[in-house]
Amino acid sequence: MAKPSIGYLGMGIMGTAMSGRLIDAGFKVTVWNRSVEKCKPLELKGAKVAKTPKEVIESCDITFACTSDPSSAREVVFGHDGVLAGISAGRKYIDISTVDEDTAKEIAKAITAKDGIFLEAPVSGSKGPALQGQLVFLAAGRKDLCDEAEECFKVMGKRTFFLGDVGAGARMKLVVNMVMGINICALSEGLAVGTEAGLQGKDILDVLSEGALNCPMYGLKGPKMLAGDYDPAFPLKHQQKDVRLALGLGDQLGQPLPLAAAANEALKAGRAAGYGDDDMSKVFETVKKAKK
Amino acid sequence: MAKPSIGYLGMGIMGTAMSGRLIDAGFKVTVWNRSVEKCKPLELKGAKVAKTPKEVIESCDITFACTSDPSSAREVVFGHDGVLAGISAGRKYIDISTVDEDTAKEIAKAITAKDGIFLEAPVSGSKGPALQGQLVFLAAGRKDLCDEAEECFKVMGKRTFFLGDVGAGARMKLVVNMVMGINICALSEGLAVGTEAGLQGKDILDVLSEGALNCPMYGLKGPKMLAGDYDPAFPLKHQQKDVRLALGLGDQLGQPLPLAAAANEALKAGRAAGYGDDDMSKVFETVKKAKK
Amino acid sequence: MAKPSIGYLGMGIMGTAMSGRLIDAGFKVTVWNRSVEKCKPLELKGAKVAKTPKEVIESCDITFACTSDPSSAREVVFGHDGVLAGISAGRKYIDISTVDEDTAKEIAKAITAKDGIFLEAPVSGSKGPALQGQLVFLAAGRKDLCDEAEECFKVMGKRTFFLGDVGAGARMKLVVNMVMGINICALSEGLAVGTEAGLQGKDILDVLSEGALNCPMYGLKGPKMLAGDYDPAFPLKHQQKDVRLALGLGDQLGQPLPLAAAANEALKAGRAAGYGDDDMSKVFETVKKAKK
Amino acid sequence: MAKPSIGYLGMGIMGTAMSGRLIDAGFKVTVWNRSVEKCKPLELKGAKVAKTPKEVIESCDITFACTSDPSSAREVVFGHDGVLAGISAGRKYIDISTVDEDTAKEIAKAITAKDGIFLEAPVSGSKGPALQGQLVFLAAGRKDLCDEAEECFKVMGKRTFFLGDVGAGARMKLVVNMVMGINICALSEGLAVGTEAGLQGKDILDVLSEGALNCPMYGLKGPKMLAGDYDPAFPLKHQQKDVRLALGLGDQLGQPLPLAAAANEALKAGRAAGYGDDDMSKVFETVKKAKK
Repeated sequence: MAKPSIGYLGMGIMGTAMSGRLIDAGFKVTVWNRSVEKCKPLELKGAKVAKTPKEVIESCDITFACTSDPSSAREVVFGHDGVLAGISAGRKYIDISTVDEDTAKEIAKAITAKDGIFLEAPVSGSKGPALQGQLVFLAAGRKDLCDEAEECFKVMGKRTFFLGDVGAGARMKLVVNMVMGINICALSEGLAVGTEAGLQGKDILDVLSEGALNCPMYGLKGPKMLAGDYDPAFPLKHQQKDVRLALGLGDQLGQPLPLAAAANEALKAGRAAGYGDDDMSKVFETVKKAKK
Repeated sequence: MAKPSIGYLGMGIMGTAMSGRLIDAGFKVTVWNRSVEKCKPLELKGAKVAKTPKEVIESCDITFACTSDPSSAREVVFGHDGVLAGISAGRKYIDISTVDEDTAKEIAKAITAKDGIFLEAPVSGSKGPALQGQLVFLAAGRKDLCDEAEECFKVMGKRTFFLGDVGAGARMKLVVNMVMGINICALSEGLAVGTEAGLQGKDILDVLSEGALNCPMYGLKGPKMLAGDYDPAFPLKHQQKDVRLALGLGDQLGQPLPLAAAANEALKAGRAAGYGDDDMSKVFETVKKAKK
Repeated sequence: MAKPSIGYLGMGIMGTAMSGRLIDAGFKVTVWNRSVEKCKPLELKGAKVAKTPKEVIESCDITFACTSDPSSAREVVFGHDGVLAGISAGRKYIDISTVDEDTAKEIAKAITAKDGIFLEAPVSGSKGPALQGQLVFLAAGRKDLCDEAEECFKVMGKRTFFLGDVGAGARMKLVVNMVMGINICALSEGLAVGTEAGLQGKDILDVLSEGALNCPMYGLKGPKMLAGDYDPAFPLKHQQKDVRLALGLGDQLGQPLPLAAAANEALKAGRAAGYGDDDMSKVFETVKKAKK
Repeated sequence: MAKPSIGYLGMGIMGTAMSGRLIDAGFKVTVWNRSVEKCKPLELKGAKVAKTPKEVIESCDITFACTSDPSSAREVVFGHDGVLAGISAGRKYIDISTVDEDTAKEIAKAITAKDGIFLEAPVSGSKGPALQGQLVFLAAGRKDLCDEAEECFKVMGKRTFFLGDVGAGARMKLVVNMVMGINICALSEGLAVGTEAGLQGKDILDVLSEGALNCPMYGLKGPKMLAGDYDPAFPLKHQQKDVRLALGLGDQLGQPLPLAAAANEALKAGRAAGYGDDDMSKVFETVKKAKK
């Protein structure tokens, strides 16, 4: 069976990496970006460059989009010559952007009202995994589209989850990031009290790495925390926002989350200390600073 | 160079496994246990059986002990015909039991007062790793003894940490278990709010396993928690006690630990619900139960 | 100087009590209520009854409104023949309803755009204090109107605070209710651990009443909590909502509030247990229930 | 009936004030203090001065003691020529010192073993109330002695609670101080977020003083906190210690206390910031400081 023709909207770091892998894998890809010069590297690899999202959606079997935030995700769909202007019965749109549940549902509703087929598929993973095809997709919406796009997902990622109705992808990201927010505070408290108690930070990390808690995050962040290197992979303010939103979800559902609440306060203390744009692991400095 | 002769006090599950591995590796081993019948399997493997700890310590180059709690660790040393009765200048004693810092220091002081050489080396890991030689030793005390015993540690474990003065091993265990206590609560809150929000528990675990938080504990405990299987690997009451002791350490040092404090309360709620003897992961039932 | 003519919109429990006191004090009062029969008692006392808010605002010097929630506060202003239809340069409107800051600001903006003069003045106190003229007004907006209305406030309450620009009244209510939410949890924890420890609940309350923490809330709620009487004076779900909103305010400002966050989780546990419509003090049952 | 003869051990600020009131009320009082010169003012008022606690206990019907801490409470009883040396069948000893439950029980056991009669009666209240006879006694032990001493308690205080077996007085103090520790944090968070939100600190205190939370502590501490005056009435380190001990009590009983745990961490942050010897209300500076 012939490969579907692919559209890709948004040539940021992630979109460039993903569409590049699709071209390498032999797909015919049409790309678009607000500022056209970012399409150049893809054009050199063989991509067609379109002038509008509308043009992409009209000419491709499946169109992916990866934008930077909810407002640009909306703009690409609802804006002039946007996705909505081009969508029609049976056209397929997969939004990979990380957006809140309401934005995902609003886009889904508009696409569906015009008989388009929609899938949300926010990713877990950043630049490195994107280049290596090691992303994880948290898909929700139309199961048939998820299946059909699987050959694309396999090129871009190592695993695709289909989670149910639109909104489930956004919720899964919140839950996972909430657990991560608690975890980075746990590591911070462990390193803080352990080093105060005369242990070497490096020894604590090494012991952790030999046991049941050994995880990539401790390995990646731990040594940097001890070195005071907080170059942002995931900014503290975004981590705090996700914990706060997860608490909001718990509030709606009447689910107490006392550790998440304590983590939120610790991360807020980090924000208050001016670390919002640094890596989330800089919460360690606040935990430590709590002791003069 | 000839292998040192080895003594081993305490033929519980752990001691039996460790001394068995030493015999298999070609060491001459003399064993002792309060109830002598537990020495039988080792005798069959070639061990000599002694009548008292005193006899062991007098006849071996290095004596290990692995007892069940602080009071039996003391009894073996201070009791009639105990370690202290046999120790003399240059004799070497390594206590592998998990004890509190005060007990470790008291034993160290008594051994040292008779010119004996002491090392505390509590282990991280349970029966399985003991049988496979995959334990982790958290050693502290006399560095020269730690070096000399390295050929034994290598037979019994995968990694030995030397952490400094006596007491550091006990403290390291507390810090690591504190981080673990926070972590099991984090997983519980994530699973609770996620499943309430309509996600599948299995999907949450799978997504976690593909990302930065992937750790053995989530993989081992997670599926059992969803299945309601709380057969104790590490009893909840012991986990709570360790978090409480770590908070006590923080209190001494003036180090605030708000997440550990919240985890302690969650684990206390588990104890209050009657789950003290179940696996620590049963805190999940309390977190969930908080919602009617 | 002649007394100003007074309008009063909303003849609920609070509005009836307040307008009744104004009539008794000799003010000429025109009243309105959505369902006209609730105006009858006031008419018997000498009030004029109007058909619409517009009619009231056009015919009175100062118009008060006391509605049940933000949506009815908006309806009275923006609805057909509402306040906005009657407002004009120099007409004075004082909203006593408890609304969120955004609603207060929206109403203020609309009134001001037509050159009307606006004051928000949410009250602290319920039916009893309203009947006895013992309310407390948390006023914000136009200071000159606050001064001019002081002779009315004195009839209805014991104290009027002028707090600054519109929104400050709503914020003050949140802050005070946040402190209250923490306090009811504090009392619950004290009674729970004290009675577990063999003390009599009544003794704990009596000792508290003799010391630095003696406050009306402990005296009013404490004995009822021990008796299991949770007839709602202030429903738990509203208390939890206010703590949550205060946490949201803290989040905006980057102000960590760890105790408020813990209180919010405790109150959420109360909601999850099905106590949302009972008195907020029923959080005590959740705190106690945490122990089997 | 003749008034009993009274002994009083310990002429610190509190003991001097209490024994002075007893003399003024017509009791015959014999006093003792480690450094005899502190007995002078009482001698001038008519007290007899004894050389040892033994001498006091042998010559008086009821002997009170008010010492500064558990170790001096023990010394007075167990030391050379101490209470225990003089006690005999039917002699009565009332310890007013604030001690831990274990110390109280140890003293009770020793007195009782010699057929003496014992009451613990720690006080709530400081210098001012002592001078004005406005103390509150938290008595426990022998009820008959509590009744017999009531005429003395009435001279020294406004209220006496009899709480049951020895230890109950110490526990009641912990519970009340735990509620106080939460409360001072609640006030701190309210003032911090309120002032951040543009409200006047004084207005917040005034609104609180008009409502259900109006208590002496808010009135006394609040204005000083806004002024940065932390002259110690009750040192922060003692407040933190009491919250910690109350948490320990909850731990023994399996009673979760999440707000007390959060308060303990906030107070620890105060200690870590170097405020241990300042008034407990200086926790406000830490709460505020959390925001840069």
